[in-house]
Amino acid sequence: MQIMNYMPVADVLHGKTAVGVEVTVRGWVRSRRDSKAGISFIAVYDGSCFEPIQVVVPRELNNYKEEVLRLTTGCSVEVTGKVVGSLGQGQASELQVTCIKVVGWVVDTDTYPMAKTRHSIEYLREVAHLRPRTNVIGAVARVRNCMYQAIHRFFYEHGYIWVSAPLITASDTEGVGEMFRVSTLDFENLPLTSKGTVDYNEDFFGKETFLTVSGQLNAEAYACALSKVYTFGPTFRAENSNTSRHLAEFWMVEPELAFADLNDIAKLAEHMLKYVFNSVLQQRCDDLEFFSQRIDKDIIRRLQKFIESDFAQIDYTDAIKILKNSGREFKFPVNWGIDLSSEHERYLAEEYFKAPVVVKNFPKDIKAFYMRMNDDCKTVAGMDVLAPSIGEIIGGSQREERLESLDARMRERGIEAEHINWYRDLRRYGTVPHAGFGLGFDRLVTYVTGMGNIRDVIPFPRSPRSANF
Amino acid sequence: MQIMNYMPVADVLHGKTAVGVEVTVRGWVRSRRDSKAGISFIAVYDGSCFEPIQVVVPRELNNYKEEVLRLTTGCSVEVTGKVVGSLGQGQASELQVTCIKVVGWVVDTDTYPMAKTRHSIEYLREVAHLRPRTNVIGAVARVRNCMYQAIHRFFYEHGYIWVSAPLITASDTEGVGEMFRVSTLDFENLPLTSKGTVDYNEDFFGKETFLTVSGQLNAEAYACALSKVYTFGPTFRAENSNTSRHLAEFWMVEPELAFADLNDIAKLAEHMLKYVFNSVLQQRCDDLEFFSQRIDKDIIRRLQKFIESDFAQIDYTDAIKILKNSGREFKFPVNWGIDLSSEHERYLAEEYFKAPVVVKNFPKDIKAFYMRMNDDCKTVAGMDVLAPSIGEIIGGSQREERLESLDARMRERGIEAEHINWYRDLRRYGTVPHAGFGLGFDRLVTYVTGMGNIRDVIPFPRSPRSANF
Repeated sequence: MQIMNYMPVADVLHGKTAVGVEVTVRGWVRSRRDSKAGISFIAVYDGSCFEPIQVVVPRELNNYKEEVLRLTTGCSVEVTGKVVGSLGQGQASELQVTCIKVVGWVVDTDTYPMAKTRHSIEYLREVAHLRPRTNVIGAVARVRNCMYQAIHRFFYEHGYIWVSAPLITASDTEGVGEMFRVSTLDFENLPLTSKGTVDYNEDFFGKETFLTVSGQLNAEAYACALSKVYTFGPTFRAENSNTSRHLAEFWMVEPELAFADLNDIAKLAEHMLKYVFNSVLQQRCDDLEFFSQRIDKDIIRRLQKFIESDFAQIDYTDAIKILKNSGREFKFPVNWGIDLSSEHERYLAEEYFKAPVVVKNFPKDIKAFYMRMNDDCKTVAGMDVLAPSIGEIIGGSQREERLESLDARMRERGIEAEHINWYRDLRRYGTVPHAGFGLGFDRLVTYVTGMGNIRDVIPFPRSPRSANF
Repeated sequence: MQIMNYMPVADVLHGKTAVGVEVTVRGWVRSRRDSKAGISFIAVYDGSCFEPIQVVVPRELNNYKEEVLRLTTGCSVEVTGKVVGSLGQGQASELQVTCIKVVGWVVDTDTYPMAKTRHSIEYLREVAHLRPRTNVIGAVARVRNCMYQAIHRFFYEHGYIWVSAPLITASDTEGVGEMFRVSTLDFENLPLTSKGTVDYNEDFFGKETFLTVSGQLNAEAYACALSKVYTFGPTFRAENSNTSRHLAEFWMVEPELAFADLNDIAKLAEHMLKYVFNSVLQQRCDDLEFFSQRIDKDIIRRLQKFIESDFAQIDYTDAIKILKNSGREFKFPVNWGIDLSSEHERYLAEEYFKAPVVVKNFPKDIKAFYMRMNDDCKTVAGMDVLAPSIGEIIGGSQREERLESLDARMRERGIEAEHINWYRDLRRYGTVPHAGFGLGFDRLVTYVTGMGNIRDVIPFPRSPRSANF
């Protein structure tokens, strides 16, 4: 009796089976080509690596005419055959088929949205449930997974504890942007208070609740107990930004480190990014090769250069001087006090430093209330990490650990202490200098893959007027 | 010049520094004891392992009287000293202090909610921002992290691709429970259609949207392209269940496997659970030791027994017979067609099989529309994994891959095909048998730690009328 030996295509192609052994692979037909001699060459893809495997089907098989010759792109098959060295170029192994079973047909080949010819990336967004079957979105999925696993591995190996920050929150103090409301109230019949306003006491949580914009404040509580933590989960912005860089729902990594200052987390950011890029270069060179051929030919060299570069560091105030002296005509005029815009960031990273650069110590008025006040009383200990060809990829800060300074900043911003007393407690009881940053994971995937639109690096993107699937 | 050599407490205690070397540790004071001879013994905790390190402070230090003798629980300190073998019982190493710096005082020791004496677990929930400073919640955080990392590692090593399922969804077809609405409409001024109903076209996504109850349907789309995937993210239930087993927001792992049937995922579930429990036993024996002393003395033996057990497998129909013949008086009467309740599940796992048990092939009417119809046309290929002392921990199924059967089930349930055409497409184009399961991560943490209430194993629990911090 034959023993079925199911193998991922990746294992067969990468030589984990000896030549001559019979194996079974399962996947979807990418293409079929029939020779005049009565042999069919079928490319079978199973997602385990970029390449499909070529399986060679002789016409002697029972179902050759009735089934094999009817196979089209997208049909699912189970193929058993002997591993042989490939005569085709580029591939190490192929299968000499002894049995091919059609598992699922494409019921109507004319309507199948994933025909063999290449589709526009915009069209693929319309069929997000089928687009992982394409070369490009399959490669994105594998690279995204590789980066995700690398980030967890990095933090785990360095003694950080993953903390799940809550997504539903009653706190809207960070003020980084518009929030989505979460509610179980009946919209057609809202309960009202005696004053005629909506009675949130009747809502599920007994008060107004929203989707979080950041897990940072929660992570701080854990860092002030366990020293090294990070969150990694979805965060939300209800901003009406229909751009190629924004999502309403995106994944964010936020490490938080006790007994640490701005320099510590600048180092952490550099260390982490290089670790992640190294992992992708080592583990997903097949997919990167594809991206460099089809999407952005510079992609591999860019990652290698990033890894080899020492990050530049510069104060905001000096960055403003550089921009002013650049001789450049910027769309947004440069003055001390402005928030750097993308053109400024890219000038610094791409043209001036030609390397990733950490800009530090921003004017207090353009940064969040929790950033630590510097001795000059004008700037706070925030940082942005700018990378060539994408701009800001990380934003972080040393947190204000002194209660009086924090309270003063909160008063400036009109944040009432009572709403955030728990956060103040962290400063009242055994306060420590601490710092952390936030990294938009999806944006980092666009950087690594060269994909131009962030909606193409997350499986089912959410953006204004778009929440399909 | 002295080189600062910061070390996690875990590294010092576990012998990663040679005796005689000078190191610096940083953390929070757990306790202070002063000997008559003018020596203070301070336990310093930094979260890197269960034990604090004992640091021995001689009165000769400059700040001994002014600072050391004023140290209380919760103060943050930076301590430099020589590693010496400990004379105290149980600990391998302690520090002979040469310098101790107080980083942050407890500003008002009388109001500090985390005084040294033990607190009730209910009280700790009120101070969720400080409770990670306690033995029990610190241990939960480390075990939770260990389990989380083990799950990712397991799937990565087995070739699964992590897929981020969307949290905001317009689909409410699964019907597993009440959902939270997500909206940016102004509640005080809702836009209305010409018919006088709420105009969701004006909402952020241009239609009604909710928080997801499961990433399964999305994961299926990716499994039907990449073969082996999993999601791991927050999911939501707006049920008014104020129990020790329910959260409104919880984390769920959902692997989905193409070319797989019910037996394949039953094996996957067994394999995965044992891998996770093994990781905890190997990596967090310090924390498990604590749980077995304070929370549930049976905990370690239970995990070991779980790992050694072969899972029992039984059909629902046979399980009903066993329950009927048990001679037990159950609160909920047993008849073919009922959903098993906790008392039934625990009888099967704890008393009848005395092992984890997979119950399979449930009556179709009590299970979701997407489960595969069996040949008897009465049952579907669903499974529940029941564990001794907790009951159901995993629910899964083989998915209906035949379009006609799926459509028939949808008609039975009143689900309109047009709402879920994308899901039907997966059956129209190269359909494959596929299967997956869902594991409530937080509930699994209660199982491993022995913690009685699920609100104590997630940092900031969300439940009816409770969304603090």
